[in-house]
Amino acid sequence: MRAEIAEQPAAVAATLDALLPLAGEIARLGEGTRQVLFIARGSSDNAAVYGQYLCSVRAGRLGALASPSVATAYRASVDLEGVLAVSVSQSGRTEEIVATQDWARSCGARTVAITNGADSPLASRADLALVTRAGEELAVPATKTFTTQLAALAVLGLALAGDDVARLRAVPDAISGVLGVADAAEALAVRLTYVERLAVSARGYAYAIARELALKLQEACYVTALGLSYADLEHGPIAVVDASTPALLLAAARDGAMLEAMTALARRCRSEGAHVFGIGGDEEFAAACHVVLRDAGLPAELAPLTLVVPGQLLTEALARAKGIDPDAPRALRKVTQTT
Amino acid sequence: MRAEIAEQPAAVAATLDALLPLAGEIARLGEGTRQVLFIARGSSDNAAVYGQYLCSVRAGRLGALASPSVATAYRASVDLEGVLAVSVSQSGRTEEIVATQDWARSCGARTVAITNGADSPLASRADLALVTRAGEELAVPATKTFTTQLAALAVLGLALAGDDVARLRAVPDAISGVLGVADAAEALAVRLTYVERLAVSARGYAYAIARELALKLQEACYVTALGLSYADLEHGPIAVVDASTPALLLAAARDGAMLEAMTALARRCRSEGAHVFGIGGDEEFAAACHVVLRDAGLPAELAPLTLVVPGQLLTEALARAKGIDPDAPRALRKVTQTT
Repeated sequence: MRAEIAEQPAAVAATLDALLPLAGEIARLGEGTRQVLFIARGSSDNAAVYGQYLCSVRAGRLGALASPSVATAYRASVDLEGVLAVSVSQSGRTEEIVATQDWARSCGARTVAITNGADSPLASRADLALVTRAGEELAVPATKTFTTQLAALAVLGLALAGDDVARLRAVPDAISGVLGVADAAEALAVRLTYVERLAVSARGYAYAIARELALKLQEACYVTALGLSYADLEHGPIAVVDASTPALLLAAARDGAMLEAMTALARRCRSEGAHVFGIGGDEEFAAACHVVLRDAGLPAELAPLTLVVPGQLLTEALARAKGIDPDAPRALRKVTQTT
Repeated sequence: MRAEIAEQPAAVAATLDALLPLAGEIARLGEGTRQVLFIARGSSDNAAVYGQYLCSVRAGRLGALASPSVATAYRASVDLEGVLAVSVSQSGRTEEIVATQDWARSCGARTVAITNGADSPLASRADLALVTRAGEELAVPATKTFTTQLAALAVLGLALAGDDVARLRAVPDAISGVLGVADAAEALAVRLTYVERLAVSARGYAYAIARELALKLQEACYVTALGLSYADLEHGPIAVVDASTPALLLAAARDGAMLEAMTALARRCRSEGAHVFGIGGDEEFAAACHVVLRDAGLPAELAPLTLVVPGQLLTEALARAKGIDPDAPRALRKVTQTT
């Protein structure tokens, strides 16, 4: 897992090399579509949340997350004319995702597959395949396959928006820079050695990363981590944040309104007696947290691609601190089959 | 909270009396719409998940959950022609929800408000208001305002589907019947007195209720409860289910494929050494669980209206078992303002 975290600048660069030339094709396929429906599970579903925000905010298209059981179990007939269905699956072989993509097409949607499986059924049965170039991932917890999914989703969202996709070229170097927080992540992991519960929260684009880090901490550290949006935490579960349940809060440095809200949330959690750890943000955010792992300063809509990295480093170090092999935690297989 | 749980048959009956006559108006407003976008937070968002499934499976319309920050923080311009935007808010006064409804209308959507606040800004600014008749709710954890929201969503979904809404008349008596599991819920609560973590899961229509019960257990019992879909639990967090982290699994008795999947999940969780408690299901499901609270046998698409009740009874009893006042848990207000 540690080696694969470090491979991310190269994996994202290779993925951008492969996908940036497809921006025109993406824009043509998206012409006349008004909604983007994401089909995914697990980590890929968290990546899809980023795509959902990007398509809604930048590309004027309502982004939605599919409920695969609507297709696979209830076999519903839904009108998907004018919908771009984007399936996200690392392997491209999860039957439920392939079946839901087939269902979307049969309901009238155009289909895009985002997968690391070049020869997978998901890729071969989509109108357009965006194949990530993560290489083989050996550790069970997804890292480089997740960031390359984010990169593919960024290409998709910016292309649909008619935006300049070439500015994604700044991402690999930004990830390299963030890898420098490894020592700070290690120190924070030592402090968290005996933690059993954590609330992970963010708002806006970064929310996808809060969900993903909560999942990673569950998978690799056996921590009961709740991945919550800012508003969800305000709406009730703040009742569970206390001296033994710290908050891990994420905010992009250049995401104005979100950063302000997350800084206020950090102060509130702290005033309730909880320890507050941060990823990203600015000086004021750092002052509101007990410890912060700093992020690169990419624009808000690209920041998720780097914000996840300090959290991956923290997860990997915390697994070791707890005596768990981060590469092969219990009860997990690399490809999960749900039908 | 206990009294309000018992008021639900009457509250749902009063809500149906008020809303069933509006079925024709709902169908007319929905003519030509192809997506239903739900705008909600907290418990109301869990109710919306039920609406999402119902509209997708029965009414041929893609159901989606809005991300309010897309509207209120990023102020995105999204094409919502042909979209029916359904806002759900107990008070009808949460600024973020009112602002997002206004945003949806300005983007071209038709709007429906589901609220218990007859004179609220949410109701007065919607094309159509479906006002629930829960009466005033005094306990902080939502119960009767939640089930009446489900009733309103059922009227909406069935009306959009051109289905017979009058069969909803069976619901109040079915809820009354389920109130009979109170003693069994009390006994299960005693067993759970010192539980700190729980995984709550369901699939399909019942998934909305798993999310809601997880939220209730967090709010009222300070339990770290993860609300997970069946597939999410298969995809990783099953790593957190163990001898000290039981699973609470929900399944409707007449939801064929879902019931089968949940029975298999119960067996898997049990084989991993976890205690498994169930709500609903059939004899086979009961045999796979350590303890089951039985549900009424409504059709799958209506079952959420009764499935939630054993969970409410369990939550209320567990709060008392833990020495918490279920009516007024810490750190919560009745109306949460997020902007």
